Amino acid sequence: MAMNKILIAQGGGPTAVINQSLVGAVLEARRFRQIDWVYGARHGVRGIVNEDLVDLTQETSANLERVAATPASALGSTRDKPDIAYCQEIFKVLRAHEIGQFFYIGGNDSSDTVRIVSEEARKAGYPLRCMHIPKTIDNDLVGNDHTPGFPSAARFVVQAFAGANLDNAALPGVYVGVVMGRHAGFLTAASALARQFADDGPHLIYVPERDFVIERFLADVKATYDRLGRCIIAVSEGIHDASGAPIATQLAKTVERDAHGNVQLSGTGALADLLCDQIKDQLKIKRVRGDTFGYLQRSFLGCVSDVDQREAREAGERAVQFAMWGGRDGSVAIKRTGRYAVDYELVALDSVAGKTRVMEDELIAGSGTDVTDAFRAYLQPLLGSGMPETHRLRAPAVEKVLKK
Amino acid sequence: MAMNKILIAQGGGPTAVINQSLVGAVLEARRFRQIDWVYGARHGVRGIVNEDLVDLTQETSANLERVAATPASALGSTRDKPDIAYCQEIFKVLRAHEIGQFFYIGGNDSSDTVRIVSEEARKAGYPLRCMHIPKTIDNDLVGNDHTPGFPSAARFVVQAFAGANLDNAALPGVYVGVVMGRHAGFLTAASALARQFADDGPHLIYVPERDFVIERFLADVKATYDRLGRCIIAVSEGIHDASGAPIATQLAKTVERDAHGNVQLSGTGALADLLCDQIKDQLKIKRVRGDTFGYLQRSFLGCVSDVDQREAREAGERAVQFAMWGGRDGSVAIKRTGRYAVDYELVALDSVAGKTRVMEDELIAGSGTDVTDAFRAYLQPLLGSGMPETHRLRAPAVEKVLKK
Repeated sequence: MAMNKILIAQGGGPTAVINQSLVGAVLEARRFRQIDWVYGARHGVRGIVNEDLVDLTQETSANLERVAATPASALGSTRDKPDIAYCQEIFKVLRAHEIGQFFYIGGNDSSDTVRIVSEEARKAGYPLRCMHIPKTIDNDLVGNDHTPGFPSAARFVVQAFAGANLDNAALPGVYVGVVMGRHAGFLTAASALARQFADDGPHLIYVPERDFVIERFLADVKATYDRLGRCIIAVSEGIHDASGAPIATQLAKTVERDAHGNVQLSGTGALADLLCDQIKDQLKIKRVRGDTFGYLQRSFLGCVSDVDQREAREAGERAVQFAMWGGRDGSVAIKRTGRYAVDYELVALDSVAGKTRVMEDELIAGSGTDVTDAFRAYLQPLLGSGMPETHRLRAPAVEKVLKK
Repeated sequence: MAMNKILIAQGGGPTAVINQSLVGAVLEARRFRQIDWVYGARHGVRGIVNEDLVDLTQETSANLERVAATPASALGSTRDKPDIAYCQEIFKVLRAHEIGQFFYIGGNDSSDTVRIVSEEARKAGYPLRCMHIPKTIDNDLVGNDHTPGFPSAARFVVQAFAGANLDNAALPGVYVGVVMGRHAGFLTAASALARQFADDGPHLIYVPERDFVIERFLADVKATYDRLGRCIIAVSEGIHDASGAPIATQLAKTVERDAHGNVQLSGTGALADLLCDQIKDQLKIKRVRGDTFGYLQRSFLGCVSDVDQREAREAGERAVQFAMWGGRDGSVAIKRTGRYAVDYELVALDSVAGKTRVMEDELIAGSGTDVTDAFRAYLQPLLGSGMPETHRLRAPAVEKVLKK
């Protein structure tokens, strides 16, 4: 058996830079004389079991570069979470096509798939090299300084809150922005980097690492509104009470319109709307607006960190280099080596697979509604170059004539 | 009385380029030796009646340039719609401060305010020059080829749908994006420019210029989904049935959770959620997602058309030039003079004030769910330079081994 073929696939939610990793791996693989064919699977593991494969060896370098700069998984993705039986199906196809190396770009679930496929190959005595290339806007992979995809999504969140802050300063009121992140608050916390002046929003930040208490929330909002005449709030979609129950569900119980229990609370604008209702009803504030950033924060075309692009590209390249020269399966992990510089290590698949990183305590302020300087120092270099700034008029007041 | 002072204010919803108009007017005014003082009112007409004025003569050019590049009304804005009594209060303050020229940057309502103030000054025999500088993301001012602010918001909508299309191609399903626009569908229609390949979304576009029929909508979605296995839909927040009743209200009546009538349907994610529920319930499609673009489409920092920036700047400059040399009050209007070039005219205030432009019939396709080539030709040059492109893999399929 020649083992001169590699197969690459993309899994989970797309990011702005997932194709950089794809193209990094493809172009690097094409440099090796031991590799004759570079295959891609359409729609992740589903494409493997369906034998829905394409020959990436027949792509031009120019088109690959243009695809690299295009967001969202160019091969297509899947939400399938393979169990052992599914992985055996994957393995059967890999074997039939004499694949020698398997690369899967994805998050926690994808790394677990790679781990199981690696096990199956080992059990069968089939010489398959299995590599996981990290990707997730949630930044929740353990053992990584950060994950490719997170910096660009964080940049979107920063630019969104910086703009919302200006809009809200022009027409004051309360603004609630709901950000992705079920368990890890990194993306919501990124909103803190939107602040340029001392009274800029977001003024309050709620992450799933801290229990959410609606009474405390309302008191926080009231205090800010009384002080500034306005309040901008960043909320993670994953906020929950002390029992772990999602706040959207909790609030839905208290409002008539959701009393019937048939409301889908995820992937909708429900949480933002419910929080806005609470602020209006309980605090009697009139101008209260909520936005759910939804798919925009991971898919918006043209909002990307150049640092993220470069690192996603390198993660793909390094995965191939580790596969060719490393002698073992694993997951590529980003390590921070300077201010700012990174390097890539190959870590064991079971150290990443199925585990979830959340924000470390030192990144969250004691108040529980802000980040620390350590978080700001952590995120700032990831956002990339060319971040737009905001500036204010500094004109002095004109002396009153009628009302002096 | 010297008449050597001018006052400028900003009204209505902020845009990405409203400060270009402000700075264009301020810097141009400072060139004239007849003008000694350039005042600004904080939060529009409300700042005038409260004598909350600032002295823009004491701004540096460098800071003004940085403010020009910053989105959202730097002077602050207001939603106040002055009646005659309110306008008389405005006039009282203008007179007390010996203002010789009044500039108001805003939409329909703001132009009406300028019209009334102009009337009051004329009646009082007070020599006040009153100028309206156009601004609105809705593009609904009559007599204008387009309005400053619209191109940048349109660019956001294009980039949002181009990204949503890629995300949806990677993980197929139905996606509904709700776009601002109560009466005019221009901003929703802009989504059509997101398409690069023949099967790119949005596949269906619903504007308020056409009555919305839920049964027809569901049939449209089903036909697209059956054909492509996915469907991307752009919906204006202002869609309504033949009687003019908003669709959000209509749908809310048919679902239990909104049966109590106490649901706020505007400025929330309700319309997107209700349409998604209909698609899931009636068409039995599982993966259905909705986003409401909300404030992001007008406030997102860093998404701006350079054409829009330039024209908003020129509209402010020309307003001052018309005021100094034109001899009459009016509203600055953008006229298209070439492919692509514009010029500015001063039109009568009552030709703009309180009127609403909607999409002309020749811009909407016969199907009622798409735009025409005429619309594409109209919008394309407004989006500005550096629009990101999207590209696809073109790799050929690998021959099946197991399932041939």
